[in-house]
Amino acid sequence: MPDNQRADARRNYARILAVAEEEVAAHGADASLEQIARTAGVGSATVRRHFPTRRALLEAVSHKRIEALSVRAHDLTGKGDSRSALLEWLSDVVAYCVAARGLAAALVYDGAAPESVHENACSARLEEAGHPLLRDAVRDGAVPAGVTVADLITLAVGIVLATEQHPDPAAAAERLFRLAVAGLSPQI
Amino acid sequence: MPDNQRADARRNYARILAVAEEEVAAHGADASLEQIARTAGVGSATVRRHFPTRRALLEAVSHKRIEALSVRAHDLTGKGDSRSALLEWLSDVVAYCVAARGLAAALVYDGAAPESVHENACSARLEEAGHPLLRDAVRDGAVPAGVTVADLITLAVGIVLATEQHPDPAAAAERLFRLAVAGLSPQI
Repeated sequence: MPDNQRADARRNYARILAVAEEEVAAHGADASLEQIARTAGVGSATVRRHFPTRRALLEAVSHKRIEALSVRAHDLTGKGDSRSALLEWLSDVVAYCVAARGLAAALVYDGAAPESVHENACSARLEEAGHPLLRDAVRDGAVPAGVTVADLITLAVGIVLATEQHPDPAAAAERLFRLAVAGLSPQI
Repeated sequence: MPDNQRADARRNYARILAVAEEEVAAHGADASLEQIARTAGVGSATVRRHFPTRRALLEAVSHKRIEALSVRAHDLTGKGDSRSALLEWLSDVVAYCVAARGLAAALVYDGAAPESVHENACSARLEEAGHPLLRDAVRDGAVPAGVTVADLITLAVGIVLATEQHPDPAAAAERLFRLAVAGLSPQI
């Protein structure tokens, strides 16, 4: 592809992505792909070429927040109590998913075969970022062995999905997250 | 309304509900209301008169399962260890939601104002049924005080929503449920 065509394609992609970010922020994971095409001034086929599935679009829209959560995991790793660090990060994952419409939908397991998952897929990126936090907490006997980062992210996403219609979704999600952290064990 | 008209309306409702049950079983919470109308041989307006919202339809479709889970709660109350009884019931709630498409969507908090919620709404019925189980477990100090049945049902629903695309949703949901019951506490 000649340089000027390549530059055109990049600008096109950037414009569609910017519009998609606004539409998903306004309407959540069910944002209309047709509306995104109209607002961006391109055809539906162009949107579909860049984002073959709704999931691909949600993942692209969520990219910056996944990066921010990855940086957060990196900053917390090795600092202070390992259980507190892990829980603080998970609490951030919950809070980000509550605040950013479409992020929970970009992280929920979607049944894609592993070979079809892009290596930068949101859930893979986030699992990789959280791994050192969980590893340290398990090493310190602070959380049960056998738990995976994928388990913890799935639980966080489920909590967000189940509380998104609450009058105060952030408070409802945080409450359920605390409940899941405490567990349903006898109180000593 | 004359008796024969009333009987017609009842038959109409029963036929639409039977079709809706099949459509929701096949396509989940997003089942097409237009398809239900077509298969039942009625107009869309008739379907909307009986079920003004998608939620109303999902609640009607879920009625028998809510009744079964309520009976289950009643049978478990006062039998054996109170924590085991509560956890067995919650595990059944998770399993029913995994098996019956649309049930989780009928139970998820939908933001309806309390006065607009029919007294037989699925979540209200299920909370009422589970209350004695939780009350006994809290009395025995077996689970944290302050937890509500609504919390536990919301957590169960979230787990089901987050795992429904897994290759084995029942196993994935049960695994996460066990994780939430165990909590993320130091291992003794």
